Amino acid sequence: MSKLVIVGTVAFDAIETPFGKTDKILGGAGTFIGLAASKFNIDSSVVSIVGGDFPQDYLDYLSQQNIDVSGIEIVPDGKTFFWSGKYHNDMNSRDTLVTELNVLEHFEPKVPEHFKDAEVVMLGNLHPSTQMSVLNQMTQKPKLVVLDTMNFWMDCALEELHQTIKHVDVITINDEEARQLTGEYSLVVAARKIHAMGPKFVVIKKGEHGALLFHDDSVFYAPALPLEEVFDPTGAGDTFAGGFVGYLTKTGDYSFENMKTAVIYGSTLASFCVEKFGTERMQNLNDNEVYRRLDQFKSLTQFDIELT
Amino acid sequence: MSKLVIVGTVAFDAIETPFGKTDKILGGAGTFIGLAASKFNIDSSVVSIVGGDFPQDYLDYLSQQNIDVSGIEIVPDGKTFFWSGKYHNDMNSRDTLVTELNVLEHFEPKVPEHFKDAEVVMLGNLHPSTQMSVLNQMTQKPKLVVLDTMNFWMDCALEELHQTIKHVDVITINDEEARQLTGEYSLVVAARKIHAMGPKFVVIKKGEHGALLFHDDSVFYAPALPLEEVFDPTGAGDTFAGGFVGYLTKTGDYSFENMKTAVIYGSTLASFCVEKFGTERMQNLNDNEVYRRLDQFKSLTQFDIELT
Repeated sequence: MSKLVIVGTVAFDAIETPFGKTDKILGGAGTFIGLAASKFNIDSSVVSIVGGDFPQDYLDYLSQQNIDVSGIEIVPDGKTFFWSGKYHNDMNSRDTLVTELNVLEHFEPKVPEHFKDAEVVMLGNLHPSTQMSVLNQMTQKPKLVVLDTMNFWMDCALEELHQTIKHVDVITINDEEARQLTGEYSLVVAARKIHAMGPKFVVIKKGEHGALLFHDDSVFYAPALPLEEVFDPTGAGDTFAGGFVGYLTKTGDYSFENMKTAVIYGSTLASFCVEKFGTERMQNLNDNEVYRRLDQFKSLTQFDIELT
Repeated sequence: MSKLVIVGTVAFDAIETPFGKTDKILGGAGTFIGLAASKFNIDSSVVSIVGGDFPQDYLDYLSQQNIDVSGIEIVPDGKTFFWSGKYHNDMNSRDTLVTELNVLEHFEPKVPEHFKDAEVVMLGNLHPSTQMSVLNQMTQKPKLVVLDTMNFWMDCALEELHQTIKHVDVITINDEEARQLTGEYSLVVAARKIHAMGPKFVVIKKGEHGALLFHDDSVFYAPALPLEEVFDPTGAGDTFAGGFVGYLTKTGDYSFENMKTAVIYGSTLASFCVEKFGTERMQNLNDNEVYRRLDQFKSLTQFDIELT
């Protein structure tokens, strides 16, 4: 079976939405990616760092999901990365209340020996040099490298980001970030410019408006499922990425056609993620629920036109 | 063959975009709806009003598209409705520079005798009482009534809008307007509330993010085609409505399934409309181009998941 290496934060989140607020709960890009990818019963490893304050229960839980946690370094006298945010009424914008980097400040990812030959690598949102160091540890060239990033790195580490992007097959990025990275308003033109930077596939995430997958001159559009209520958007983008990369790892087919299905799986899992605080919904999600929602995605988008 | 009555403005537009500007050119909701619907070779009539300054050439052109113009009243000593606007760099927002109602101020639509038994009525964006007066002139209940409206009428004629909406099968409205009309942020909840006001079908237009079609508990999502360049968005929403209603008039099938296809036709025609100033692209559009783009829509959205 194919193996998947994920690098990303494992963290504490404290979230406030119009529906309520949480204390410190399990969060972080690596966590959300890992949990989503784990739905595909693959061999995955999360590479990250936490402090001595991180509950063993959380690590045990991840292990139970068949996620290898030997790449999660524990710094006994350090504190775990902590993020706190408050969502506005429309749930589409938020204020960051607290960002404590803590142990993340000196994070040097170490890929476990038995994952250095993994076929797929998912570089969660981190400093591009940190992402690159994971690629440098691989003993054979992965068949697929997926990178997620954000505007913060474009502002403060653009050169390093360009260097890392060169080595990537797929980039996931939101619409505003795609525009910032390229200086182009049209997402079609922006995707073409990002292709030229290296990635053969460009996934542009548009939140409630879905996601676009670009490859050469082809494009595929996966809508987000229209929801009655978005309870907590935290982790939706990472869950999307985890579903995308988990499905590709499981199938071992990295073609554009198969990536369409992977995007639909990513959107489907993300639509669950936002129904509860943090990882709660992803922790209580069974295969039947996923299948039913995939079926909803089919109904949502499939139509029949006879072209004569 | 089924007949279609369209009520809407026939007007002069002057448009400024980052790509250039126009003098007074042919515009108006009735014009855009009529031109889009005319692509389906149906019997349609545009009911409207113009001034003595309106060129006979424009009327002749509409007639040549098999659009009945006998319901377009000409006020010899009046001036035609004039709108002028300037789009911002992102093409998603615009400033209205001039609105001269002119003859539109005293518009009393008169449906031509031989269209009073039309199966389909399209009520373009106008005062809701003006829209209602068209319905009142029909000698038999139409099989389908579609209404377009905007926030302006919610601000200044909400009671009349509610009265008219009761008599409508389909409403087309943009996302912000759906939220304003219902006080609900979730479009799923907003659509349900609009259902309760009368329309069995609710089409929510989201511009570059596509359109949603709601019916009971079902929803269908048609993306907008990702474009390299939006040259002039003027008339895109009306062209969408014209394609939607034209296809339904032609097929005479007003089921949810067939409306999905109608939405795709509407989106397809709208994707052409924005490629040139005003009606220019719609005036030079052949069936092959439409078919090719419908095919692109299929590629854009269709995927294959086997649910086991």
